[in-house]
Amino acid sequence: MKILIAGIDGYLGWPLALHLSGRGHEVGGIDMYLRRKWVEEMSSWSALPISSMPERLVALKERHDREISFWEGDLTNYDFVEGIIREFEPDAVVHLGECPSAPYSMIDVHHAKWVQSNNVDSTFNLIFAMRDHRPEAHLLKLGTMGEYGTPGMPIPEGFFEIEYRGHKDRLPFPRQAGSWYHWSKVHGSNNIMFACKIYGLRATDIMQGVVFGTQTDEMAGDPRLLSRLDFDQAFGTAINRFCCQAVIGHPLTPYGRGHQKRGFLPLRDSMQCFTLALENPPEHGEYRVFNQFHEVYDIVSLANTVREVSSDLGLDVEVRHLDNPRMELEEHFYEPDHQHLLDLGYQPAHDVATEVRMMVGDLIAHRDRIEAKKDALVPDVNWSGRRSRVGFVGEQTVSTRD
Amino acid sequence: MKILIAGIDGYLGWPLALHLSGRGHEVGGIDMYLRRKWVEEMSSWSALPISSMPERLVALKERHDREISFWEGDLTNYDFVEGIIREFEPDAVVHLGECPSAPYSMIDVHHAKWVQSNNVDSTFNLIFAMRDHRPEAHLLKLGTMGEYGTPGMPIPEGFFEIEYRGHKDRLPFPRQAGSWYHWSKVHGSNNIMFACKIYGLRATDIMQGVVFGTQTDEMAGDPRLLSRLDFDQAFGTAINRFCCQAVIGHPLTPYGRGHQKRGFLPLRDSMQCFTLALENPPEHGEYRVFNQFHEVYDIVSLANTVREVSSDLGLDVEVRHLDNPRMELEEHFYEPDHQHLLDLGYQPAHDVATEVRMMVGDLIAHRDRIEAKKDALVPDVNWSGRRSRVGFVGEQTVSTRD
Repeated sequence: MKILIAGIDGYLGWPLALHLSGRGHEVGGIDMYLRRKWVEEMSSWSALPISSMPERLVALKERHDREISFWEGDLTNYDFVEGIIREFEPDAVVHLGECPSAPYSMIDVHHAKWVQSNNVDSTFNLIFAMRDHRPEAHLLKLGTMGEYGTPGMPIPEGFFEIEYRGHKDRLPFPRQAGSWYHWSKVHGSNNIMFACKIYGLRATDIMQGVVFGTQTDEMAGDPRLLSRLDFDQAFGTAINRFCCQAVIGHPLTPYGRGHQKRGFLPLRDSMQCFTLALENPPEHGEYRVFNQFHEVYDIVSLANTVREVSSDLGLDVEVRHLDNPRMELEEHFYEPDHQHLLDLGYQPAHDVATEVRMMVGDLIAHRDRIEAKKDALVPDVNWSGRRSRVGFVGEQTVSTRD
Repeated sequence: MKILIAGIDGYLGWPLALHLSGRGHEVGGIDMYLRRKWVEEMSSWSALPISSMPERLVALKERHDREISFWEGDLTNYDFVEGIIREFEPDAVVHLGECPSAPYSMIDVHHAKWVQSNNVDSTFNLIFAMRDHRPEAHLLKLGTMGEYGTPGMPIPEGFFEIEYRGHKDRLPFPRQAGSWYHWSKVHGSNNIMFACKIYGLRATDIMQGVVFGTQTDEMAGDPRLLSRLDFDQAFGTAINRFCCQAVIGHPLTPYGRGHQKRGFLPLRDSMQCFTLALENPPEHGEYRVFNQFHEVYDIVSLANTVREVSSDLGLDVEVRHLDNPRMELEEHFYEPDHQHLLDLGYQPAHDVATEVRMMVGDLIAHRDRIEAKKDALVPDVNWSGRRSRVGFVGEQTVSTRD
């Protein structure tokens, strides 16, 4: 299959390119390295040192004798996107080319507008270029479980059948996202659902949980093939951040009470799930939604897992709660479905502790890089709009919460 | 009350400015005349000749000895919007400054992207400027009943209480919009709901039905105070278009079977409803949704009303169905609630036939203007993406439907 990955230079994009090309697919990719720039804007960098895209492509050729087509450019430029769809003629397009950070979108009006328009415009360009040049191709769009928020009822996969005032219908499940970024993903989901309806496109919309991990099989043995691993407040996600904190002896920092529950999955499971969706495409005109995660955890229990694993490895760290810079429920019901991918054969590969052990092992070697940017670990982007560093819960600091 | 109207030069904006200033409110307005340009792009113009904004302001002064502050500029420019909010210090902001056309948004990728980003960005600018400078002001946002689509169950006002798999919660009612434009309004509604939650803003989101009519009391007697009345495929709405067709003897043209049902309300009722919402603002942090229309009609029955009234006035016109350029259900359940505004005292002023009689009377004098642009009456923007003029149902024309 010819598969085009928008956002091939990112945390998920690069491992996915390796994985799919390893399975014999012909892979192309687009990027303009914005993720590297955003993380720099947050005064940070990847904990694992990563190669440039040209170096990655050389390494792939030398190590595995495989090639990937690459285009550098802006997904919000229609002519650029259209040209690639016409030239590469993909059977599937994986859209990972969006800005993926809630805190980044909450910085100010300019970031809020930019994240939403960047994410919506790039999706539009793919939709229209596919409609006009590859109408039978499959659009695999990365959304997030965060689109749903935390309603007081089970979360189905995209749609639900309900009865209201004596009438039954199958409707999109209501979305209650928690940041401008998460809403940008809702806007994109809505647009894609409509594109399938009116243009007959086929799409899989992935409501993905929080991904963690440093390794996939394909990158083993060659540091030039590693993917990035972020730990800053905006682009680092819970488990990845905790592991980075652990290796430098920084407290592990759940926000608020830390009983927020989320779905999680290891990086290699994410690759497996994307592949299952790509190799089992939807029908012509079908818009399907997959909730993509392995298991639901609360944040404190994950911090404790990282603490325990780290302790086994001789790292002594404590768990200390930070004032929550976000506005979110810290105790809530959470029961999302995740059956569709299991039905396609998804086999969860690892438990959290095993994965965390590998991660901490990988990260210890790069302790200095984390230490050098450790200020990026503590958030200062508050959902209220104020920009001020949050303190530990109960500490005498200037409160940043309203 | 100091009320700022974004989009004051539009079909609703100008009559609302007249109405609110007539009630003693201090009115300010923003516009950059995009509506005039969009209609020109659709090769059309207003059936009623309208004055420029400076002429309108002079007329208001001469006729009623009232003044309105006016700023010409772009609502997507944050500094511009912020400057006005700081200077004018509104108690309420009415956001009518969006591109309001489904067909216009369906023309191509550039129009789709532009309509969504223009509408989302302008709303963002108002949200942030209000958050930072007028957090207690009331944001009244114009949405559309089209955000809901036509689900197989009654449509509540924004939210509904449901039970699903043994759990109850109050959730946003799912939206199933029918064009890129309508989705832009959903995106805006979602963003405003979230802004109220995190920034404590207060907002009324108006899901408005289709407005028709040429008159409000305040514009009577001075042609310089008239509002525009569009009849082209993109900016003309059902009853307004039918009346314009009637006065030049053009067939009245429901799309497809014409049994699409929509909520409708006369222009003067729209003014009354906006005023009720403004003079009865929501609480701090409250996001409320009003379904704003008088009654549900199907399109064919409205065409027949226009035909009958026109016949009384000596105009002989037939109803002829056009191939439907849209993708929409032509037979469907439709039972939207509309109780909130009635609870605030909304008193529907006129029946459709009375209003249509006035409209046709007003429009006959400008028959030549409609005749001159009559090509704009028949749609060529198809939901499939093709641009080709649709034919009458059953006629031997090249079909434009997929």
